[in-house]
Amino acid sequence: MTQHSQAPVAPVEAYEPPYYVAVFTAVRTEDQSGYGETDARMEELVKDIPGYLGMDHAQTPGGLGITVGYFRDADALTQWRTNAEHRAAQKRGRAEWYESYTLHVAKVERSHSFARG
Amino acid sequence: MTQHSQAPVAPVEAYEPPYYVAVFTAVRTEDQSGYGETDARMEELVKDIPGYLGMDHAQTPGGLGITVGYFRDADALTQWRTNAEHRAAQKRGRAEWYESYTLHVAKVERSHSFARG
Repeated sequence: MTQHSQAPVAPVEAYEPPYYVAVFTAVRTEDQSGYGETDARMEELVKDIPGYLGMDHAQTPGGLGITVGYFRDADALTQWRTNAEHRAAQKRGRAEWYESYTLHVAKVERSHSFARG
Repeated sequence: MTQHSQAPVAPVEAYEPPYYVAVFTAVRTEDQSGYGETDARMEELVKDIPGYLGMDHAQTPGGLGITVGYFRDADALTQWRTNAEHRAAQKRGRAEWYESYTLHVAKVERSHSFARG
């Protein structure tokens, strides 16, 4: 089990724009040896990035996974992208864990949240 | 079953920036009567919007769902946001289907895809 599944079930709320989203959509390979540990480590590591705001994750069993990271500005994203341990994990991901993925980095122009009751 | 689960399992590939993403993160209520039909109808309807590029969806069972819609420009998003049938579906969603959700609308600045082999 990764830390994803232990998170409380609620979407990250809207922040005041502008801020950045990193949308990572992926299909994984059958061999996921070591993935859980690395995933948990990355979730810890990203929290140390100044300007990191939060993360949402959803995983269709046997299908697509989507992770959305929220960052205050482009500098925060650059710090995360160039982090040495993160880069090593990305390299291993391409070699072992991912069948295919796409990353979209985008600047949020508007956002809103809804909660019942 | 909605059309989501019948889609081929591969993430939408990166487009040439700039383009827009609409990131919709949601937790649903227990009563999902009518959701599947409306969801399938919305998936059909959005394809008629000029500038609609594609959609990714992932759903953690009993947890968070994330839908990412891709659009060529802000005009395409405005057309989708103001579509009368879509607005009626959104209203019903707030009344019946969603416990909580957040929408982030963002302009993509960079993107890339990876595929094995």
